[in-house]
Amino acid sequence: MSRSVSILGATGSVGRQTLDVIAQHASKFQIVALTAGSNVDMLIQQARAFKPKFVAIADEAAYPRLKEALADMPAIAVAGGAKAVVEAACLDTDITVAAIVGVAGLVPVMEAIKRGKTVAFANKETLVAAGNIMMDAVAKYGTTLLPIDSEHNAIFQVLHGHDLKGLRRIVLTASGGPFREWSTERMKKATPEQAVAHPTWSMGQKISVDSATLMNKALEVIEAHHLFALPSAKIDVVIHPQSVVHGMAEYADGSFLAQMGPADMRTPITVCLGWPERIDTSGARMDVMALSKLEFSAPDTVRFPALRLVRQVLADAGLASAILFNTANEVAVAAFLKRTIGFCDILDNIERMLNDSHKPAISTLEDILNFDAQIRETMSETIKNAA
Amino acid sequence: MSRSVSILGATGSVGRQTLDVIAQHASKFQIVALTAGSNVDMLIQQARAFKPKFVAIADEAAYPRLKEALADMPAIAVAGGAKAVVEAACLDTDITVAAIVGVAGLVPVMEAIKRGKTVAFANKETLVAAGNIMMDAVAKYGTTLLPIDSEHNAIFQVLHGHDLKGLRRIVLTASGGPFREWSTERMKKATPEQAVAHPTWSMGQKISVDSATLMNKALEVIEAHHLFALPSAKIDVVIHPQSVVHGMAEYADGSFLAQMGPADMRTPITVCLGWPERIDTSGARMDVMALSKLEFSAPDTVRFPALRLVRQVLADAGLASAILFNTANEVAVAAFLKRTIGFCDILDNIERMLNDSHKPAISTLEDILNFDAQIRETMSETIKNAA
Repeated sequence: MSRSVSILGATGSVGRQTLDVIAQHASKFQIVALTAGSNVDMLIQQARAFKPKFVAIADEAAYPRLKEALADMPAIAVAGGAKAVVEAACLDTDITVAAIVGVAGLVPVMEAIKRGKTVAFANKETLVAAGNIMMDAVAKYGTTLLPIDSEHNAIFQVLHGHDLKGLRRIVLTASGGPFREWSTERMKKATPEQAVAHPTWSMGQKISVDSATLMNKALEVIEAHHLFALPSAKIDVVIHPQSVVHGMAEYADGSFLAQMGPADMRTPITVCLGWPERIDTSGARMDVMALSKLEFSAPDTVRFPALRLVRQVLADAGLASAILFNTANEVAVAAFLKRTIGFCDILDNIERMLNDSHKPAISTLEDILNFDAQIRETMSETIKNAA
Repeated sequence: MSRSVSILGATGSVGRQTLDVIAQHASKFQIVALTAGSNVDMLIQQARAFKPKFVAIADEAAYPRLKEALADMPAIAVAGGAKAVVEAACLDTDITVAAIVGVAGLVPVMEAIKRGKTVAFANKETLVAAGNIMMDAVAKYGTTLLPIDSEHNAIFQVLHGHDLKGLRRIVLTASGGPFREWSTERMKKATPEQAVAHPTWSMGQKISVDSATLMNKALEVIEAHHLFALPSAKIDVVIHPQSVVHGMAEYADGSFLAQMGPADMRTPITVCLGWPERIDTSGARMDVMALSKLEFSAPDTVRFPALRLVRQVLADAGLASAILFNTANEVAVAAFLKRTIGFCDILDNIERMLNDSHKPAISTLEDILNFDAQIRETMSETIKNAA
């Protein structure tokens, strides 16, 4: 096996762990392109270590520094700006790892999908926003879309090779986040520091807050709806604080198939890089005895309204509600991290936006980006006024 | 879907539960043949309910009663004797359910395999004894062999569609049986009544004793070795008293895939009857919350020597050790059930036979049956002398 790989979002958590796995398999993978948002120092370091053909930094201000630092490596082409990231996504590779956080990943990911190869996908916001537009492109170009997200990667594995007509439901597991046992009153006073202290997974700030609100799981329900073409009623969520069982499928005959493993993103990343072969991971190994004393319980949709609101979002036929749900969350989380709003205000604001906003028809990427910009503005305004 | 089914061993536990599942899917399945050992009353009842083309009873003495009871149903052909059971196995069907207990199933199962259709397989003793002779026939005739045994059915499901070169190991779960926490001293005095009181599965007497000695799990290790072409080192056993997780596969990338479900044989039976489609079961449903507080621990090979001896059996290249292991166990269990020997004498006798016996080369069914007969005689003699 010898595969070329581009990583869009190489300096984030998933990007770094992807390179960690690839470093263990030097003979199997060649890096074509690496892109980053603004972390130029790490991108320079990665470029020197992995010698890609192309590196791009979205932040144009950081471009001169990148150019200079790699001046002694003329085999590496260097570029800056959002267009450079799209350019990186257009380069021919066997696998594109799409790990840009947020809606910023939308255009590059769509370009990667159009090449019809394999896209390993860690950018759930993009799929939530683009939904069937993205899945239609995947079908049209014959792209293999592999989910990196541990829950969807688990579901992908337990559906693969089995009769989907006989699938009763899938079950996504949720750790429950750091506030799993907190009262609403206590959550109202939660600080950003408390919210980002995730009990089982080591992740970025935004996704850690999403885990605390269970918004992360709500977005994953939408993601699963598109990825596996399942109606809302066939997607269940269960609280499982140990994050050992990542996902399950229940079939008509009573069989549950589950994927389990350490809470280590390198496992699903390795699955995607090797697929359909199974290759060694640089990540942790699970001891079977770790399966002892696991806990599973029903989620509380009163304390965690995200899991109630997502059903409302999926009941809407168009993409507008999902875009609104996702973008309003991005703005609200940013405001919470800046201490402008409280923890419970995140979902309160999202719910208000969801109920009060006009939902336009969405059929192109441009529609998505325009509606996204509009929500950002309205939501920022609302938050500013409330503060 | 419309499939014809024959059941060899229709009146045993697996046979009855197979008919229970089929009764729920009257439009999907037609019964071709039903066979029984000696339970003529139940066979008559089944024949009247399911209207097969052919019924056979192995016990010739029971044949007149069977013939008479079905005299008013001329569309059902009736026969008696071991040859009649083989005749039933030779009739053309889409699926043969091979559920005869013990080495008695060997010849009929091999006939069913030769027809090159699907054989759903619940007769582990046969596979243990015939090993590669059976698997060679499966390959030669292009037969689909589906394991009904819940553990192997689980492993079959978690390997299906995945890269077997990247399989690290499989893990068979064992309930640990009723004596899981008993000391050797206490086990020495265990009665047949205590041994057959299985904590999670409802099964026949012989297999219940095998669960108490963990001989059942040892035979399953040999079965897995043949079914999945895996070396002993890639087959692990873990004690899991709740019998919810039936089997697991660990892949190179750190993923564990597990099959889980209620301790209800109708689940794996339904999997086999529907495969590769998933059809509704008449069996129990599992609640995800049932996964809470499961226990897993390493087996104790001192108190349960079967799991130590099976490694010795698999280290021998030929089939003789496996035949000996299995047949000596059948004789010893029968002696224990008649209170001729104690519970711990079962394994003591097997170990002695395993160490002291000459192991002839085995290459035909006749070799198997001859060696089986020889072990039965020696073992019976040994037990009689010791008593």
